[in-house]
Amino acid sequence: MSSPLAAEAAHPEGLRAVMRRHAAGVAVITTRDGGPVGFCATSLASVSLEPPTVSFGVALGSTSGRAWRGAAHGIVHLLRSDQAAVASAFAVSGPEKFAGPVGWRWGPGGLPLLDGVLAWMLVSTRTRLVVGDHLLVVADVRETAVEPGGGPLVHHDGRFLTPDQGSTRPARMA
Amino acid sequence: MSSPLAAEAAHPEGLRAVMRRHAAGVAVITTRDGGPVGFCATSLASVSLEPPTVSFGVALGSTSGRAWRGAAHGIVHLLRSDQAAVASAFAVSGPEKFAGPVGWRWGPGGLPLLDGVLAWMLVSTRTRLVVGDHLLVVADVRETAVEPGGGPLVHHDGRFLTPDQGSTRPARMA
Repeated sequence: MSSPLAAEAAHPEGLRAVMRRHAAGVAVITTRDGGPVGFCATSLASVSLEPPTVSFGVALGSTSGRAWRGAAHGIVHLLRSDQAAVASAFAVSGPEKFAGPVGWRWGPGGLPLLDGVLAWMLVSTRTRLVVGDHLLVVADVRETAVEPGGGPLVHHDGRFLTPDQGSTRPARMA
Repeated sequence: MSSPLAAEAAHPEGLRAVMRRHAAGVAVITTRDGGPVGFCATSLASVSLEPPTVSFGVALGSTSGRAWRGAAHGIVHLLRSDQAAVASAFAVSGPEKFAGPVGWRWGPGGLPLLDGVLAWMLVSTRTRLVVGDHLLVVADVRETAVEPGGGPLVHHDGRFLTPDQGSTRPARMA
């Protein structure tokens, strides 16, 4: 093959290497399954504007994965650049994450709502798809809330970055 | 509702406002539909590691949306921080994007392969899902290629950012 980059047949570590080069905003997605359940996601994407719809992936073997096999609703929180400790707390297993570095309350829909985030969305499951080791959830957005200030936490190459301190240039993308 | 942020019922502009606060790496996804076809995506996400699988959304009414209703294969390119002009070229409609600021060749699978990217993946469509105004494509990763140097182009708040110049701190996320 005449590519300028050496290509190799895909395997899990190959995808991991590619996605380490990618950058992603960081979300914490909560639901209720008896008690509060939540996980840190770098897979949040907007799918459709009309109707407003998002998607995210959750590991099937995790507590959140088990919850999302049946969950009808959740709250998607976008983390602020100063919330790396929150992301780390929700990236590991265990119930202690809700006793960790972020305050929360029972919010709309009887769901865990985290304090101090950039923005959040109350979502309702539209479709679930098992894809390999993950559940892909497509969800309708029911309510939105946006905090005017602050910048996003970004995950790249195994680290958190604060892009509001990076260089910027105007873009034509919507 | 006792949220610290004022919430409102969801509508397209509300989702747009939330996602402007989000950050995303920037991909150009190409396929062949007669000639070369490509678009700029901020919705690329890793779905499953075993097997390696990704997802992305494409507007149904676009040239790429029409192509991806039937496309079996494509190439997902992650853009470098110095490729904002490439992102802008592929974010608008029209065939002139392949005569624009980036070189390309017919690559693996007979698909358009862009020069100078951070990483690319040859993918095969696994599932398509129409969700509102977009097609959500879930695709198996067949080949991967990663360039060792450079940082990612990031889209946030209508602008492109270069996060490798931002502040960083260690993270525990995988």
